Amino acid sequence: MEGRKKKFIKELMEKPSLRRESGLYVVDGPKMCGEIPEELLEEVFVSEALLSSAEQMERLSSLLSRKGYETVTEREMKQISDTVTPQGVLALVRQKRPRGIGEILGSIEKAGRTGLLILLEGVQDPGNAGTILRSAEAAGADAVICDRGCADVYSPKAVRSTMGAVFRMPVLRLEDIFPAVDKLKQSGYEILAAHLKAKEDYDRTDLTVPCCILIGNESRGLSDRLSDCATKLIRIPMEGRTESLNASVAASVIMFEAARQRRYK
Amino acid sequence: MEGRKKKFIKELMEKPSLRRESGLYVVDGPKMCGEIPEELLEEVFVSEALLSSAEQMERLSSLLSRKGYETVTEREMKQISDTVTPQGVLALVRQKRPRGIGEILGSIEKAGRTGLLILLEGVQDPGNAGTILRSAEAAGADAVICDRGCADVYSPKAVRSTMGAVFRMPVLRLEDIFPAVDKLKQSGYEILAAHLKAKEDYDRTDLTVPCCILIGNESRGLSDRLSDCATKLIRIPMEGRTESLNASVAASVIMFEAARQRRYK
Repeated sequence: MEGRKKKFIKELMEKPSLRRESGLYVVDGPKMCGEIPEELLEEVFVSEALLSSAEQMERLSSLLSRKGYETVTEREMKQISDTVTPQGVLALVRQKRPRGIGEILGSIEKAGRTGLLILLEGVQDPGNAGTILRSAEAAGADAVICDRGCADVYSPKAVRSTMGAVFRMPVLRLEDIFPAVDKLKQSGYEILAAHLKAKEDYDRTDLTVPCCILIGNESRGLSDRLSDCATKLIRIPMEGRTESLNASVAASVIMFEAARQRRYK
Repeated sequence: MEGRKKKFIKELMEKPSLRRESGLYVVDGPKMCGEIPEELLEEVFVSEALLSSAEQMERLSSLLSRKGYETVTEREMKQISDTVTPQGVLALVRQKRPRGIGEILGSIEKAGRTGLLILLEGVQDPGNAGTILRSAEAAGADAVICDRGCADVYSPKAVRSTMGAVFRMPVLRLEDIFPAVDKLKQSGYEILAAHLKAKEDYDRTDLTVPCCILIGNESRGLSDRLSDCATKLIRIPMEGRTESLNASVAASVIMFEAARQRRYK
């Protein structure tokens, strides 16, 4: 394996900035690699040990037949993988990145769907960000929007938490989210802030209209500036003395309530 | 600080078996320590640096006035804390451990509540286990039951994920969960298995009756033996190609649907 390429892959795992510039990220292991859609696959690396396992090669045959692959030694695989026990296959994948909020709205309209978007502001934990992508796909959301303060959904840990949803959910990362929120409002979207001070229960809110759910940072919640942009503040009623829910749980509970309401509409 | 005590605290952080035998666990940092209820507090350790911060001491005054505290050096605090930057206060806390399923059923009856229980089978990730406790309290569940294959909810990582719910939610860990499930059935509980092969949607199921929700391992799901004990298999309808949800998300979505149905009953 070329030294330059090895360095590039290692840096891609570690540096959000390089992932953003290149539009690429790294996926590790046969389960996740097996789900990469052809149009996003860039390069595949397979270890010598995996090559000699007929069962694994069979399982990965459709992945490996698409663009070919490069064989690497066990030592090289250990060097480029971020896991303690690399699973023998690693791929470079292109991010599913819409050009802007206009492109997302266009796809929703074209598909004749009632938009369901989720906007993350400063969600710091990569596990939470990845889990939200996984839930978003399952709840039928159309895209996830991240502000500049969010954990990168293309970090190895976040990618693993998505369980493959990262290959299918469009993720729009914006340096400045406010113009996009304005655009959504102009397009008739409800902007719903999950907020501890809200008076309206999430399940008393009509979630069958086009809407964008705002989820804030794990400890600080949403910024005042962003909550002020909301058309409605909503809350999940809570018993006991818990002050808040885990960010990915709060996002999921609201998204699945939207899915529930939409099924019965 | 006594060497023997130092060793005990370190081992308590690392060894689930010692936590089980002693019925104790360690809580780190002023935020979490400030929430420890008096009846569960065993011992408090405060670093010299924290002692000299009037603001922090003010914040912790109610904790520190209860049983007194032992002062430790910064170096000792570093040795006993599992975090890279210890926050100056650490406590030994007694587990909120019901004696058995009978005690849980007794408390529910005494409080005149409609029982809502959650049973975890082989949930491996401490973050998931802790997050489930946090959601369980907020959704108004009465207790969490864990089988022997579950991550320990009293590990430092799980404790942090509970955000304090660990001090309030009873957790019953059982070597053998099957007699408890039988007992619940005999007491009229619906035993609801969250199962990918279920036909009935979770939101079409009556969750206003006494029920126990079964959540399985992150990759394998529930064992056949336990699903076979269920009175009903339920599913969360999913769009896209996601095969399943994160365990703490699935548990939370079902528990909050139960809370929603119960509010409107």
